[in-house]
Order: sequence, then structure tokens, then C-alpha cells
Amino acid sequence: MIHSFLMIGQSNMAGRGRLSDVPSIKNSRLFMFRNGRWQPLSEPVNCDRPFAGISLAASFADEYSKNFDVDTGLIPCADGGTSLDDWGVGGQLYSHAVFQTQLARRVSEVKGILWHQGEADSETEENAVTYGVRFLKILRALQKECGLESAPVIVGELGQFLADMPGQECKFFPLVNKALVETAEASPDIALASSQGLVSNGDNLHFDSESLREFGRRYFQKYTELTNGGR
Amino acid sequence: MIHSFLMIGQSNMAGRGRLSDVPSIKNSRLFMFRNGRWQPLSEPVNCDRPFAGISLAASFADEYSKNFDVDTGLIPCADGGTSLDDWGVGGQLYSHAVFQTQLARRVSEVKGILWHQGEADSETEENAVTYGVRFLKILRALQKECGLESAPVIVGELGQFLADMPGQECKFFPLVNKALVETAEASPDIALASSQGLVSNGDNLHFDSESLREFGRRYFQKYTELTNGGR
Repeated sequence: MIHSFLMIGQSNMAGRGRLSDVPSIKNSRLFMFRNGRWQPLSEPVNCDRPFAGISLAASFADEYSKNFDVDTGLIPCADGGTSLDDWGVGGQLYSHAVFQTQLARRVSEVKGILWHQGEADSETEENAVTYGVRFLKILRALQKECGLESAPVIVGELGQFLADMPGQECKFFPLVNKALVETAEASPDIALASSQGLVSNGDNLHFDSESLREFGRRYFQKYTELTNGGR
Repeated sequence: MIHSFLMIGQSNMAGRGRLSDVPSIKNSRLFMFRNGRWQPLSEPVNCDRPFAGISLAASFADEYSKNFDVDTGLIPCADGGTSLDDWGVGGQLYSHAVFQTQLARRVSEVKGILWHQGEADSETEENAVTYGVRFLKILRALQKECGLESAPVIVGELGQFLADMPGQECKFFPLVNKALVETAEASPDIALASSQGLVSNGDNLHFDSESLREFGRRYFQKYTELTNGGR
């Protein structure tokens, strides 16, 4: 049975890397969830917008599949530009993600959650300082409703390049990153992948394709650490 | 509130028209359902496969929006290559469509169902002659589960060009078309759009982009006839 992972968060989980900037991943054991069924993976996996592109989830899945010799599927639920408030328990994005996961559980073993989000909560100090508490509230509700209480959760730091956004729109991002570090340290089921050295596609908001491939490998590394190498 | 329509069926509802063959539709009142929320419509609307393209649903929505002066949304649930058996009550495709519709009902008024399917049931005589009964069983269950018992349903004939498929894979398509005609005649809430004169994109399986634009207009014409010009 396919091992699957939920993709959740905002644009850097959906993926905005240019498709032409990296070779496509050749691995016939990778799948993506479409209309409740598994289809061969091709990018963009998470078609939230017409300009969706390379996501970190594809190289994560590739590493997972190769290391554990297993068919691996992605459940795309990330949505560009969305804040934690947009992901509120019982809201549209949340309900969609819960249902997709429940539907995927019929035809796969959901092995974990891949989360990348927080740019939209870096715009005000109030949202940034309360990020950790608000994130955990949503995550725990989602896990419970999906029957994934014991599933590993991998989150990723926001890009350091947010400091260079011309309008400083995300200027409180270090507070969100701090919240992510503290949340992961305090939670045995959550691990944090570093964004150290990863670069933007030029807009200082989105990771570029090469960086997303690397980020996915870091997510996988954290997954193996969290699970002591298990699958 | 947005008026919305469910897109359901197989590849010719999902849409396989080449994107470059027709001008894109410019209408800021058109939306598509993504992750439980409404986004500005752009094609492909129904991203079931990497090669999804122009669908008949976009020009239907454009006509609807302009004629009734209302924001109009599409709920993409069609999936290429799928048979009625694949759409069986309680199955993955069915469950996905029911949930999407329920989620859309929170944020729109679902006004009808757009169906195009049957090529996959044209491959054997047994499936083709039993099409009408099996179609209605699924449709009625879906409508009930979605709370859409009184919603108009527009279906479309299969392409006449199926007769020219080199391997005659869909050779029983006239029986499916006959079933669609009879079903529409016997059902006050179902209308059938003709495929007369519409042409293929070259594979004698899929309608081309121009034909899909016209097909969508025919679907809308049938919608107005069915509802006596109401919205």
C-alpha cells in the first residue's frame, strides 16, 4: 500500500519554483492524489494557482520512496497566501485538508504531515508572537480529526531572504521562525528543517527550485531523525 | 453569492482542448474551486491530469454569468478515463465529488450539475446497453447526498467522431448516446446537449477547443430551456 503524506501550508509548500529550473524527478513509485485516486506524480503537484510549480514535497517523496523502497504519495492541500487564521479549525482550508486525508486513508497509509507556512503571519508582531500556540491548536485538531495523532510532522523554517523583501512585508518572520524552533523542541512528534543557505527565486518571498529540492531532502532527513530511521 | 456548478464525468468534461487553440475567457466574475475556496477562473479548471486543457464548463460558466449577471463558479471533479463503475456510489470519485459539493455549498449556491461521460462505457455492449439505468442510479444518489435533488442536470452526447477511432475502442457509443437521449426525455430535470457537428482534436476521442467552447454554449442553452429561462 502507498505511503502518503499531507502537504499543508501556504505558497512555499504548494511550490512556486520554476518548472524549467530543475530536472523533473524520474521515479515511477511516486504518486499524487487527484479526485480521491492516485495518479503518477508530475509537477506541479499542488495546483492551488495557475502559477504553481516545484514544491519541496516532491524531492521529499523521492527520498522517502528510495530509502524505504516503497510507493509514496502526496496529498496536496497547501494554498498560497494563507494565514493561520485562514487555516482555522472547521474553516474551508481545514475542512478540505481533513477530508482529503480521510479519503487518502482509504487507499494509502498516511505516514506524516509536511507543513510550511508562516509568511502571512509575519506581517504583524501580534500574529508572529502568537504563532506557536495558534499553529499547535490547528495541528492538533487536524491530527485528531484525521486519526493521525501519532503521525510525524515536519515543518520548515521560513526563508532567511524574507529580510530582503523590498517592502519589509514579512518583517516579523524571525519571530515565526523562533516559534517554529520552540514548538519543534517541545514536541516529540514535530521536527524542524532548516532553511539555512536556501535562496529565493528572485522575489525574496519564494524559494527557488534548487532550494526546494534541497529543502525536501532536509525534510526527509528530519523525518528519519524523528522516527529513528523507521518508516 | 456565487452560483456554482459541479463538473463531473471523464476526460471530455475535465477538458483536453489545447490551451493555445482558443482565446482565454476574459470574465472577472468566473471562479474555480481550489482547496475549498474560490479563485479567479483560469484554464485548465479541472487539473485531473498534467495534460488537462480547455473544458466545455468554462464557456458554459461564461454564458451563465453574462446572461444572469452573476458571479459563477465551477467545482472540478471530472476524472479522465473513468467509467460508471469507477463512479460507483461510495467509491473514491463519488465521495470526492460529494464532499467538494458539500464544501462548495458553504460558500456558494450550487445551481446544477454538468455531466459528460460514457466513452469508457462504450467499449462493451453490456456496459453500453445498461448505461441509462446505471447512470441514473449514481446521479440520484449523488444528488440526494449533496442536497441537490432539484438541481438541473445537463448532460452531453458523446462525440460522433468516436466512430472513426482507429481501433474502434468505443464502438458501442451510439448505444450510450441513445441511453442519454432516453434518460433526458424521461427525466424533467435532465437535458441533453447535442454533439452534432463538433469535431475532435485529432485523436477521435477528445473534442477540440473550439468545439468545447461551442459545447459549453449548448449546455447553457439546454440549461435555460430546462429552467424556463430562470437562473
